[in-house]
Amino acid sequence: MIQLSLIGIGTGNPDHVTLAAVRALNAADLVLLPRKGEAKSDLVDLRRLLCRNLVTDLERTRIVEFDLPGRDAQAEYLDAVDAWHAAIADVWAELMDRYLPEGGLVGMLVWGDPSLYDSSLRIAGRLSASGREVEVKVVPGITSLQVLTAEHRIPLNALAEPIQITTGRRLRERGWPDDAATVAVMLDSGGAFEALPPEGLYIWWGAYLGMGKQSLIDGPLADVGPLITERRAALREQHGWIMDIYLLRKC
Amino acid sequence: MIQLSLIGIGTGNPDHVTLAAVRALNAADLVLLPRKGEAKSDLVDLRRLLCRNLVTDLERTRIVEFDLPGRDAQAEYLDAVDAWHAAIADVWAELMDRYLPEGGLVGMLVWGDPSLYDSSLRIAGRLSASGREVEVKVVPGITSLQVLTAEHRIPLNALAEPIQITTGRRLRERGWPDDAATVAVMLDSGGAFEALPPEGLYIWWGAYLGMGKQSLIDGPLADVGPLITERRAALREQHGWIMDIYLLRKC
Repeated sequence: MIQLSLIGIGTGNPDHVTLAAVRALNAADLVLLPRKGEAKSDLVDLRRLLCRNLVTDLERTRIVEFDLPGRDAQAEYLDAVDAWHAAIADVWAELMDRYLPEGGLVGMLVWGDPSLYDSSLRIAGRLSASGREVEVKVVPGITSLQVLTAEHRIPLNALAEPIQITTGRRLRERGWPDDAATVAVMLDSGGAFEALPPEGLYIWWGAYLGMGKQSLIDGPLADVGPLITERRAALREQHGWIMDIYLLRKC
Repeated sequence: MIQLSLIGIGTGNPDHVTLAAVRALNAADLVLLPRKGEAKSDLVDLRRLLCRNLVTDLERTRIVEFDLPGRDAQAEYLDAVDAWHAAIADVWAELMDRYLPEGGLVGMLVWGDPSLYDSSLRIAGRLSASGREVEVKVVPGITSLQVLTAEHRIPLNALAEPIQITTGRRLRERGWPDDAATVAVMLDSGGAFEALPPEGLYIWWGAYLGMGKQSLIDGPLADVGPLITERRAALREQHGWIMDIYLLRKC
């Protein structure tokens, strides 16, 4: 029997880690740290740093790094994601069998919060569906969306109004969603806001939120849109990778 | 000059507090604790408990409780909210003048996260607008929505799909929002989901999320809707108040 804790660790600011996350990490027999390839090695470094700073008994808690399988960028999106999740579930299962053949408590550090555009819960579901006894526990963590609004000192919602959280892909395909004064955009591979008519929209943008290299821009979309595109390209070039999100509001 | 830290403290589980929140609390010269009337005294008790457990130097950090003005339940909603925010800003200003006439660092404990359906940022904005020098800092906190999904062990979003976060009031008035597979409902004064045709919808509901008396129900809305309504009324009767939220997904 495996108990699997999906532990939200925030977005790179070690001060955003909760006491519950520290407890869950220290309760684990095995902590699995995914490596996502050289370009994003900063993210592995941050996870390693968190483990080093927060795990008090490294004799008891074994930390194992593994290479995350890649996603097929050529295949149709949902098919590619499905195959990718299956491949990751296989790797998890193999590591659990190898390091905890008698069962035990596995901790998995999840960027942000396990509920928001993260695959861990779905991958864990595949383990259960394949007949393995896996009991999942979720420890919430601060999301990049919360760091974005905190750093810009803005509410997520306009007063008494709804918020739509969506993806760059979706914004490009469907445009501004009906019935939302505020749209938060995540998982944008670059500048989906350019697909919108910029008039009457204000944007709050942030990259590497919570990290030392955090970068923020805000202003009317018509004014700052090109600046964001330029800054994003320069930062990506400089650091080899980028993660950014933004909030758009009708004004 | 006043520096005002709006400190997200999560939803009642002291383990959900972040290290950043603990730091901000201990850096404050003055912590203001709102009292919201007898029925919700549990919430003041929780804030008091957090202060007692987390503030290390009670000589340095002064903790002051104050009565939060009430909102006019008869007036039109947005007018009532506007007048209410103005009244709260006046109380904050008076307390800052009284306890920190030379300026200093004020900490305000905010339930959940200051970005999500919380008035503190708007009230702080009124202080600045009235000519006061107030520098605002926001410390993100775990929201009830994150605790809801963590406790039910579900993702907030369907795979690659958007999420609409809305209010009970809005759901009643407008029904299911277009272009959303998932709807999270907050600030519902009771059973707005009853306004929807329940067929094809699944609901995950939670009350007092993060607290010892937390209560969870999930299932097809057609099956568990009446059960939620009944449970909610019973819990409200038992505890004198209730805070609950839910997630609805098309299935």
